[in-house]
Amino acid sequence: MAPSNSQIAHIGLAVEDLETALSFFKDVLGHEPTGVESADGAEIASLRFGDVDIELLKPQKPDSPIGKFIAKRGPGIHHICLRVPDLDAAITDCQSKGYQMIDAEPRTGAGGHRIAFLHPKSTFGILLELTD
Amino acid sequence: MAPSNSQIAHIGLAVEDLETALSFFKDVLGHEPTGVESADGAEIASLRFGDVDIELLKPQKPDSPIGKFIAKRGPGIHHICLRVPDLDAAITDCQSKGYQMIDAEPRTGAGGHRIAFLHPKSTFGILLELTD
Repeated sequence: MAPSNSQIAHIGLAVEDLETALSFFKDVLGHEPTGVESADGAEIASLRFGDVDIELLKPQKPDSPIGKFIAKRGPGIHHICLRVPDLDAAITDCQSKGYQMIDAEPRTGAGGHRIAFLHPKSTFGILLELTD
Repeated sequence: MAPSNSQIAHIGLAVEDLETALSFFKDVLGHEPTGVESADGAEIASLRFGDVDIELLKPQKPDSPIGKFIAKRGPGIHHICLRVPDLDAAITDCQSKGYQMIDAEPRTGAGGHRIAFLHPKSTFGILLELTD
């Protein structure tokens, strides 16, 4: 068993419109985005809540991962990213325990972070991303 | 604009089976649940990640909120709960700014906390819960 030193890095929210979502976080909660960037065919606005980011993900095209998610399920909470001490070790550990990776090798995600997604069929329907 | 002192209290995951989900968090991440309880027709297992809980929500009956969510969308990430300094003030603030509450008055949620949900039609399709 791995040591329990993982943390939540961010939560990704699939939204159809960044401005509407940003208005809520600003008007009600007083949160301004810390940055806006593009990754995986999505425009991403990040909001910082303590040690955890909320990433608002707006698809830039229908056939992007977020575009497909919204087409199938509507806007909603897309994934949780967990920070582990060693991403390569975590991938090997997941695979050895029968959990299927979407990314068998780390790749570069938003913010230049090394990331890898697990397959939600393997993780009880929840899309989980790992980073370090 | 409210001061930006809100935090993420927990993330609720709609799952069909607690044991399968708990196995992943234990085997891969080393996390044991801090408690199991019932609320809103769901069996809830909580896992602590720093200051944020992940709540695994298993429906106890098909016509519960989580049961209906899974029937419609399949298992997935159900809601995010944000901690605000003053729940009553936040509800009044949301309503005054045109955001629709599911709970116009605070009610008691899991862990005995005072909670109120916003209507996802009002918050860009994302189900958000407030607590203090």
